[in-house]
Amino acid sequence: MKNKITSKFVYILVLLVLFACKNDNEMDVDSVSETKVSQEHPKLILTAQGVKDIRAQLGTIPIFDKSLQAVKEEVNAEIEAGIDVPIPKDYSGGYTHSRHKQNWFTLQKAGLLYQILDDEKYAKYVKDMLMEYEALYKTLPLHPKTRSYARGKLFWQCLNDSNWLVYVSQAYDCIYNYLTEEERNKLETNLFRPFADHISVDSPQFYQRVHNHSTWGNAAVGMIGLVMDDEELINRALYGIKDLKLDTKEKDDDGGFLNKDGKAGFLANIEEPFSPDGYYNEGPYYQRYAMYPFLVFAEGLHNVKPELKIFEYKGGVLLKSINALLNLSDADGEFFPLNDGQKGMSYYNNALVTAVDISYHFGDQDPGLLSIAKEQDKVLLDDSGLAVALGIKEGNEKPFTKKSINLSDGPEGKQGGVGILRNQGIELVFKYASQGSSHGHYDKLSYSLYEKGEEVIQDYGLSRFVNIEQKGGGNYLKENKTWAKQTIAHNTITQNETSHFTGKYDIGSLHHSDLNYFSSEYDSVQVVSAIEKNAYPGTTMLRTMAIIKDEDFEKPFMLDIMKVTSATANQYDFPFYYFGQVLQTNFKYSSPETLKPLGSKNGYQHLYLEGLGKASGKNTKFSWFSNNKFYSLTTVTNTKDELLFARLGANDPEFNLRRDPALILRTKNSKARTFVSVIESHGSYSAVSESALNSKSNIKEIKTVLDSNAYTAITITTINGKTKLFITANTNNTKDSEHNIKINDKNYEWSGSYYFK
Amino acid sequence: MKNKITSKFVYILVLLVLFACKNDNEMDVDSVSETKVSQEHPKLILTAQGVKDIRAQLGTIPIFDKSLQAVKEEVNAEIEAGIDVPIPKDYSGGYTHSRHKQNWFTLQKAGLLYQILDDEKYAKYVKDMLMEYEALYKTLPLHPKTRSYARGKLFWQCLNDSNWLVYVSQAYDCIYNYLTEEERNKLETNLFRPFADHISVDSPQFYQRVHNHSTWGNAAVGMIGLVMDDEELINRALYGIKDLKLDTKEKDDDGGFLNKDGKAGFLANIEEPFSPDGYYNEGPYYQRYAMYPFLVFAEGLHNVKPELKIFEYKGGVLLKSINALLNLSDADGEFFPLNDGQKGMSYYNNALVTAVDISYHFGDQDPGLLSIAKEQDKVLLDDSGLAVALGIKEGNEKPFTKKSINLSDGPEGKQGGVGILRNQGIELVFKYASQGSSHGHYDKLSYSLYEKGEEVIQDYGLSRFVNIEQKGGGNYLKENKTWAKQTIAHNTITQNETSHFTGKYDIGSLHHSDLNYFSSEYDSVQVVSAIEKNAYPGTTMLRTMAIIKDEDFEKPFMLDIMKVTSATANQYDFPFYYFGQVLQTNFKYSSPETLKPLGSKNGYQHLYLEGLGKASGKNTKFSWFSNNKFYSLTTVTNTKDELLFARLGANDPEFNLRRDPALILRTKNSKARTFVSVIESHGSYSAVSESALNSKSNIKEIKTVLDSNAYTAITITTINGKTKLFITANTNNTKDSEHNIKINDKNYEWSGSYYFK
Repeated sequence: MKNKITSKFVYILVLLVLFACKNDNEMDVDSVSETKVSQEHPKLILTAQGVKDIRAQLGTIPIFDKSLQAVKEEVNAEIEAGIDVPIPKDYSGGYTHSRHKQNWFTLQKAGLLYQILDDEKYAKYVKDMLMEYEALYKTLPLHPKTRSYARGKLFWQCLNDSNWLVYVSQAYDCIYNYLTEEERNKLETNLFRPFADHISVDSPQFYQRVHNHSTWGNAAVGMIGLVMDDEELINRALYGIKDLKLDTKEKDDDGGFLNKDGKAGFLANIEEPFSPDGYYNEGPYYQRYAMYPFLVFAEGLHNVKPELKIFEYKGGVLLKSINALLNLSDADGEFFPLNDGQKGMSYYNNALVTAVDISYHFGDQDPGLLSIAKEQDKVLLDDSGLAVALGIKEGNEKPFTKKSINLSDGPEGKQGGVGILRNQGIELVFKYASQGSSHGHYDKLSYSLYEKGEEVIQDYGLSRFVNIEQKGGGNYLKENKTWAKQTIAHNTITQNETSHFTGKYDIGSLHHSDLNYFSSEYDSVQVVSAIEKNAYPGTTMLRTMAIIKDEDFEKPFMLDIMKVTSATANQYDFPFYYFGQVLQTNFKYSSPETLKPLGSKNGYQHLYLEGLGKASGKNTKFSWFSNNKFYSLTTVTNTKDELLFARLGANDPEFNLRRDPALILRTKNSKARTFVSVIESHGSYSAVSESALNSKSNIKEIKTVLDSNAYTAITITTINGKTKLFITANTNNTKDSEHNIKINDKNYEWSGSYYFK
Repeated sequence: MKNKITSKFVYILVLLVLFACKNDNEMDVDSVSETKVSQEHPKLILTAQGVKDIRAQLGTIPIFDKSLQAVKEEVNAEIEAGIDVPIPKDYSGGYTHSRHKQNWFTLQKAGLLYQILDDEKYAKYVKDMLMEYEALYKTLPLHPKTRSYARGKLFWQCLNDSNWLVYVSQAYDCIYNYLTEEERNKLETNLFRPFADHISVDSPQFYQRVHNHSTWGNAAVGMIGLVMDDEELINRALYGIKDLKLDTKEKDDDGGFLNKDGKAGFLANIEEPFSPDGYYNEGPYYQRYAMYPFLVFAEGLHNVKPELKIFEYKGGVLLKSINALLNLSDADGEFFPLNDGQKGMSYYNNALVTAVDISYHFGDQDPGLLSIAKEQDKVLLDDSGLAVALGIKEGNEKPFTKKSINLSDGPEGKQGGVGILRNQGIELVFKYASQGSSHGHYDKLSYSLYEKGEEVIQDYGLSRFVNIEQKGGGNYLKENKTWAKQTIAHNTITQNETSHFTGKYDIGSLHHSDLNYFSSEYDSVQVVSAIEKNAYPGTTMLRTMAIIKDEDFEKPFMLDIMKVTSATANQYDFPFYYFGQVLQTNFKYSSPETLKPLGSKNGYQHLYLEGLGKASGKNTKFSWFSNNKFYSLTTVTNTKDELLFARLGANDPEFNLRRDPALILRTKNSKARTFVSVIESHGSYSAVSESALNSKSNIKEIKTVLDSNAYTAITITTINGKTKLFITANTNNTKDSEHNIKINDKNYEWSGSYYFK
C-alpha cells in the first residue's frame, strides 16, 4: 500500500479528534459533516494499518490463515468460472437472484484478497465485474417481479439490493486506489450513487422506517457514502431522508406500521429495537439476521468517523447486543426460538462470526469470545479477525460461560423483558417482553425449559422451512399464523380458548408485561417474576418461576407459580409441551376411539385430543422419558380439573406441523386460580447397559399453603419426608423489602423478594 | 503364585495333547474325562501365566491400567459398604434381586483384583462373602416368587441363578489356592455342587434345551465344573444331563418348544442357533445377550481343556459369530433391530468388550478389533484384555471396516439369511431368514435402510422399555405382539391385512426364505435377492434389492423390486416407514376430519389413517426431509393404486408406541404385482446457514420394461434424460449363468446374476 506518510498524519488527527470527543457521549449532528478523518483506502472494515499488520502476521495465525485459504479457494473457483451479470428476472431461488447474490459475496471477498495478498488478479476481477454492473444498472427499470412493497432493480425487493450494496461497497473500498479517478467517477455516477438513491429517496416506504429491512438500507447507503466520502449519503444513512415525513398510519404487508412515529435512519434503528441491555425486540433469530448491517456499518463508522463513537452510542448498546445474543442461546449455542425463530440457528452462523470478532476487537477483548471464535473455526478477514486470531494464537481463550441474565425490552428498557435462569445444565427462558414487532407471538409470560442444550418443555418456534422451496417456497406457512403465533402453542395460559389480545397485532403492540423481580444473586435459588394485565382485559396473570438446586434433589428443579385472577369466571388452559414417551400418570383418562380436533380456531383446530382425564387428587403427577432422561411434573390440582393429552397435526393436510405432544391442564368456570407446578429432571437411561437410574420423582407432595394478594407460599415435600418452603412476594418485592408473615401459626421473617428453606 | 514346576509340566502335557489332536477336528467324547490338563489356579479366564504377564506390564498398558483402576474403585466401594447376602424375596428390580446381582459382579471383580494386585483383602472379601452364601444357600427352599417356569433359589428364575454361578465360579477360581482344602470342601459340598444341581438336574425344563437360557445354565455348570475339576459337571455342561429325555411336544411360556428334538448341552447350543457364518438365529440383540456365557465358558474350556479345541468347533463358529455380530451394526455401532431388538444397543455394551477381546486374543489378532476396543475404552482384566491392551499400546489398531456381507441362517446355513449392502454410508439390511425362535417377527423379506448410522426407512424394533419399570415392569409390552411382531409393522408385503403365517409361531418356525443370489463383488452395484413361498400359501414373493452408485447420482440409491405372484386376487399393502417431515407428493390425497384406525387387527388397529390418495400416474413420487437430508421415493404405480398416509398410535391408551409415520402403497384385487421403487438420499440442509442443497429427486421416471418368470428389467431415467437399465435374473442366476434377452428389440447379453448399465 501507498500513502504511508498520509497514514501517520491521519492517525494523529484521529487521536486529536478522539481527545476532543472523549468527554462527550452525545453526538453532534453538525460535526459529522465537518470532520474528515481519512481519505485513505481501505478504511471500512479493513484499514490500511490493519492490512499492514495482517500481512506481517500471515502464515503464523492459524485460524486466520485457514479462513483466508478457504476464501481464496472459493474466489479462485469463481474467477475461473467467469463473470456473469445477468439481466434481473427471478424471485429468490431463481437463477438471476442467486447469481447476483453470489456475486456480492464474491466481490467482497475478492476485494479483501486483493488487499491481503496484494495480488492484482483479484482487483481486476472486482473492477471487471463492477464495470459490468455499471453497464447493466444504468439500463435497468424496476425489477420485473411485482410482489414487493418496494421493488429493487437487481432483485425483486429493495432489501436484497441493499444487501448487495452493503457487501459491494466493501469491495469498492478495497480496490478504490487500484482504480483511476475516471473509473471511479464512472462507477460512482452510473452505479453507486443511483443505486443508493433507488433504495432510499426513491423507496422511502422501505428506507424511512424503523425496521430490520431499513437497517440494511441505511447501512448500504452509509457504507457506500463512507467509501465515496459523500457526506450527503452518510447523513442520509444516519438520520434518514432529510425533511421527509411519511403517513404515520400506513401499514406494510405484515400488518406493521410503515412509520408510526416518524423515526428513521441508522441511529433510530439502533435506538428503537434495542433495549439498553441489548435485547432486540424481535428476538434472537431476527437479531442474528439484522446483526450484520448494524455491525459492519458501525465498524466502518468507527474507522472513518471515530468522532461518532458509534460503539459507545446508547450506552454501548451494539456491543451489549452481541453479549445479549450470545446469552440467548442454549448449551449448544442454538438460539432460543422466541417469537418467529427457526430452531437450529446458532452462533455458528456467519453473522455471528462478524459479531464475535467485532465484539472482541472493539469491546474489551473478552477471552470467552475467543472460545466461541475457535468453535466457529473462522474469522473475518479484517482487523477484528486478526485480533481474534492473535488472541487465539496467544492462548488467551477461556470458556464462554453463560450465566443467568435478565434482559429488558423496549427502547428505554421499560417494556418487560426476557429472563434466563441457568443452573447446572438446566436453563429456563421466561418471556415477559413486548409484542416483538411483526415477528412476535401471542405468548405473554410463556417459558421454555432446556437441559444441556436439549428441549425439555419446548416453544414451537416458527412454522416455516426457511429456503426449502418445496414447503411453501421456503416462506412462512399459513400455520405460522394459525398455530405458531397462537397462545395455545405456548407454555402459558390461554383463557376461554382465545389468544392473548385476541391475536390482534394492533392491540398486542400497545402492551407489554412488567417485571416483578429477578434474582440471580444466589446459585442455589434463582427467580424471575412478572405480571401481565392486558392480554385478557379484566384478568391478571402473575407468574413466578424459579430454578432451585436443593441438596435433597439430584438436579435443579423448576418451580412455577402462575397466579391468575379475573373479574369473571373463565376456562384456563395450561399446557406442558413435553417431548418423548409417556411413562406414568397418577390420574385415569379415557382414550377416544377416533381423534378429533380440540377446537375450531385460535390454534385449537391443530390439536388432536388423544386422552381425557380428571385429576384424582391434590397433586397430579405425570412422568415422561426423553433423550434418555426421566422427567416428572407435579402440579397442584383439584378433582374438577381436566387433563388432556393433545397432539399437534389436526387440520394440517400439507403436513406442515410436527406431530408434537402436550399435556394440558384445564380448569373451567374459574375466577382465580394459582397453578403451581414442579418439573424435575432426574436420572438417566442407557440403551447400551439397559440400566435405568433414579427413574422416579423425588416429590411426595406440593401444596399451596398461602395465597394472598401479597404472598404465595408453596411447600414441597420429598419422598423421604423433607419439606421445603418457598414464599414469593407478589407485590412489595424489592431486594431490601422486609417481610414478616404467619403461615400455619409459624412466623417467617425475611428481607428480599422471596424466601426458600 | 506357587506351583511353577507343575506349571511347566502341564504346559508340556498340553503341547503333547495338542499335537495328538491336531489332525482331528472331531471331538472325542470319551477323551474329555481322561485328559487332566491343569490343576493350577486360576485357570478359567485368567491363567497363571497371564497373571504373571499382566503383573509385569502393569502401569505401562494404559487401557488395561484404566480398566483396572475403575474396577478397583468399584470393588473398594463395595468392600467399604460391607457384605450383604439377603434372604431371597423379590422379582427383578427388587432389592434382594439387585443385591445378589451386584454381589456376583463384585465377587468376580474382587477375584481378579486379588490375582492381579496380589492383595489379600480382595481374597478375604470373596471368601467371606462365599461363606455367607454357603450358610444361606443350604437353608434355601425354592425362591418364593412363582412366576417362572423354572424357579431358582437366589433369584426368581434359574436363568439368574445361572448368571450368578457363571460369574462366581470365576471368583472361586481366583481364590481357590487362597482357601484351605477344608474351606473348599465346605463351599463345594454345601454351595457349588447343590447350586449346579439345582439349575441342571433339578430343573431340566430350563437346562436340557437349545435356548439362550440353557446356554447360561450349561456355562454355569461347566465353569464351576472346570474350577472344581469335576468331570461329571463338565460333561453335563457340554452334552446335557445324561440319559435324560424330555417330552418333545411340551412348550414354554413364550410358545417355544421345550425340547423338540432332544438336543441339549453347551455344544448343542452352539450347534443349533449359530449358522456356519456365525449368524445367531434370534438376531444381533439377543446374540449380544447370549454372547457372554458362550465366550466365557469357551475361554475356560480353551484354557483348561485345550484338547477340545472349542474355538475351532463347528468351523470356528464362535469367533465367526463375533465378526457377524460386529457387522450387524450401523455406522455408530448400534445393532440392527432385527426381530425383538431394542434400538440403541451397540457394541459398546460390556458383553461386546468380552467378545472383542476374546476374538482378538483367540482369533487372528485383527487390528480392526483394536479400534473398537479403543472406542469401548475398556478391556477385560484377563489374558485377552492384556493382549488387546498391548496391541493398542503398540499402535497396531486399524479402522474396523464393515463391508457388504451375506450371513446364512440355520444350523447348516440353509435356512435363508440376512444380507447387508453397504456403499458410502448407505446401508441396506435385508432379512430373508428363518423365524428367529420366540423372539422372531413375521417379516419375511423385510428391510431397513440407514444413512451414516441414522435410520432412513426404519424397522420398528421391539415394543418394550427394557428395565424401565414404569412401562410394564420393563418387560415386553402387549404391543410387542399386537404391533411390533406383525407384518404390517415392517417394510414388506402384507397380503389381505393378515400377517405372514397368519402370525402363528408354529407355522412360521417351519419355514424360511431362500437366497436367490447375493453379489457384492463390485463396489458400484451390490445386490441381494431372495424368495419367500410360504408366508402366504399360494403366493410367492421374490424381492431383489440393490444399492447402486452411479455417476449421474449424488449418492448411492436403493432399487427395490418386489415381485409378487399369487393364485388368487389379493390386496397387497407395501409400506415405507420413513422419518421426518413430508415435503412433496405428486399425487392428490384427502385428509380425514377425524383420525380412525386403519383396521381392527394384525397391527392395523394401531395405525391411524392421516391421508388417502390415488396414484396419479405411472410413477408415484414422495419426498421427505429428515436429519437435515432430503429423501425421495419414486415407485411404479397405476391409477388404481391407493396411497395411505398412516401414523402409529391408535388403540394405544398407555402411549406405549412411538408416533411414527408411514406411507403405504395399497393395491387391491391383484394376483401378480411387481412393486418397483427407488429411494434416493440427496442433498442437505443447514439450519445454521439456512441453505438447502440438491433438495430435489434426480429421477424423471422409472419403468418396468420387462417382467417375466425369468427376468425383471427396470429403466431409471434421470432428470437430465440419461437412462440406466437394471435386469435381474429371477431364476437362473448363478455367477456364471449366461443370459441373452431382447428388450424393446434390443439384445442384452451378459453373464452373472444381474445386468446394470
